[in-house]
Amino acid sequence: MIRVAVWGAGMMGQGLLGYILDRPGQIELVGVIDADPARQGSTVGDLLGRRCDLPVTGDAAAVLAREPEVVCICTRSNLDEVADQVEAAVRAGANVLCTAETLAYPWASDPDWAERFEDLAVEYDVSILGTGINPGFMLDALIVAWSSVCLKIDRIEAQRINDLSPFGPTVMQSQGVGTTVEEFERGVAEGTIVGHIGFPESIGLIADAIGWEIDEVVETREPIITTVPRETPHVKVAPGDVCGCRHIGRGYSNGELKIELVHPQQIHPHLEGVETGDYITIIGDPEIHMSTSPEVPGGKGTFASTGNYIQLIVDAPSGILTVTDLPVPRFWAPTD
Amino acid sequence: MIRVAVWGAGMMGQGLLGYILDRPGQIELVGVIDADPARQGSTVGDLLGRRCDLPVTGDAAAVLAREPEVVCICTRSNLDEVADQVEAAVRAGANVLCTAETLAYPWASDPDWAERFEDLAVEYDVSILGTGINPGFMLDALIVAWSSVCLKIDRIEAQRINDLSPFGPTVMQSQGVGTTVEEFERGVAEGTIVGHIGFPESIGLIADAIGWEIDEVVETREPIITTVPRETPHVKVAPGDVCGCRHIGRGYSNGELKIELVHPQQIHPHLEGVETGDYITIIGDPEIHMSTSPEVPGGKGTFASTGNYIQLIVDAPSGILTVTDLPVPRFWAPTD
Repeated sequence: MIRVAVWGAGMMGQGLLGYILDRPGQIELVGVIDADPARQGSTVGDLLGRRCDLPVTGDAAAVLAREPEVVCICTRSNLDEVADQVEAAVRAGANVLCTAETLAYPWASDPDWAERFEDLAVEYDVSILGTGINPGFMLDALIVAWSSVCLKIDRIEAQRINDLSPFGPTVMQSQGVGTTVEEFERGVAEGTIVGHIGFPESIGLIADAIGWEIDEVVETREPIITTVPRETPHVKVAPGDVCGCRHIGRGYSNGELKIELVHPQQIHPHLEGVETGDYITIIGDPEIHMSTSPEVPGGKGTFASTGNYIQLIVDAPSGILTVTDLPVPRFWAPTD
Repeated sequence: MIRVAVWGAGMMGQGLLGYILDRPGQIELVGVIDADPARQGSTVGDLLGRRCDLPVTGDAAAVLAREPEVVCICTRSNLDEVADQVEAAVRAGANVLCTAETLAYPWASDPDWAERFEDLAVEYDVSILGTGINPGFMLDALIVAWSSVCLKIDRIEAQRINDLSPFGPTVMQSQGVGTTVEEFERGVAEGTIVGHIGFPESIGLIADAIGWEIDEVVETREPIITTVPRETPHVKVAPGDVCGCRHIGRGYSNGELKIELVHPQQIHPHLEGVETGDYITIIGDPEIHMSTSPEVPGGKGTFASTGNYIQLIVDAPSGILTVTDLPVPRFWAPTD
């Protein structure tokens, strides 16, 4: 039995709680922390519609005092936003799994942060690992695994084409869905339309693992303009307006393009004949052309992957780790 | 610089030697052993048509006395056939990478062998790892990696459809290519037509990694009967005769089918509209449908994968390891 606490009971946290409740013989859920007063006082059972009397609390210290071996942080995307949570968990002697995209490879966005937490994790003899479907698997760890059957690699190209339709208003806004082209361009310039978070991280993970020196990462965000009406419960898009964001991250070595990651995110892609899926191409010897269709859903993929790392993180060496440092990730079959 | 010796200079060994010569700044090739007198005395350069003066020798002891850190054994398929070579390498203090299919998961075919070599590897503080495309990646490690984004898995199905046309007479014979259906059935019964070696190993690797108890592995070998003439430089197959072997390995838990691995191997599959490729399906939540087409070539994939494990095995813990024990495998970029 591994003692686990979950920090953040939003969509990701709830998905992970379901994973945990499915493994009563393997995981002991010792506490759930959430900053939202609307969730505090509810039980995990209330949130999930399942049987579990454990209450959601805002009192992180009380949960950490129960000495979880692993704290799963499913709250925010950026290092500065999760720093206090990661620090508190580490100082409580817990290993940390965290879905913050930037923590998949923290050296990309804030090397000082990475150094500070590396030292802290070593001091407390625990591990910190950023997890998720992307970054964390589809556009990095999986590519790295595929690269292992190659003799020679000139360039890596990968695409993740997904459907944003199930998501709520926050995602619509951050991807620019429903804007005019002009509003989209302004939103990108002003940083309100961000697209995908994780390209520098995925590129860093790949390059580090296979030994490439990537000296420049360039990101572009282009509007996906619809020619047909598209609509979800949260947004209506007229022809000529923006139904999503085609976000591209490119990694260069001495001016040569080595890694190109493309992530067009839009609502109802099938309305214009676009099939969703995950695609990896390795230009080398041999060439690799992998596809998965439809795409692995981002939410499920992220909380499944995070849960599946629980058993691996408890035996990992201390420090900040990445998914390519750990053994091949794997499903953790319930024993009951 | 990692000091490496190669044992076996056949097709696999020669491919691996090419990989090694491509990394002069990372790998020091200290010796090449081959039992075939026809190759002894030749240099590596002679065999590969490249520049390398190192001679191929039959004197294993002399090569092992040069204290390689890693010995790559590319000779035979079965544990008893490679036992002496693995033992000599381990006693010389070298880590062992070995393409013998059965060594990918030696507990499947000979648990006593596995126990003996586990003890020996621990005694000499070295690691032993079975490598290759299959077993070793396509129908096991890659499936395991994919499983990590799943919440729930009911069953795993995978197929590797390849083209045997490039292979020589030994492969044609062991797959029953060119036989009549009657001859094929007799060959399977008598053990001269073996199909693929590695299903119990791949099933063991998957089950161990994800925590399934597989209590029965059943293998079937069916003739692939051609309706059109097929021909290679080594074999001619008339309509109604056998152009390959459809080999299936199934793993059951309490009578329930959990893992089904299908490997139809034939010459010129496209003549009857069969597309080659690697296919993984995970029936679970989410469902995974992955395909790669054409298939990753078996030869290249095996020696690339073996070479790419050189940098990982030197830091691995001692004992018999499997590809799912080690970190996510990865391409090792040449530094020169």
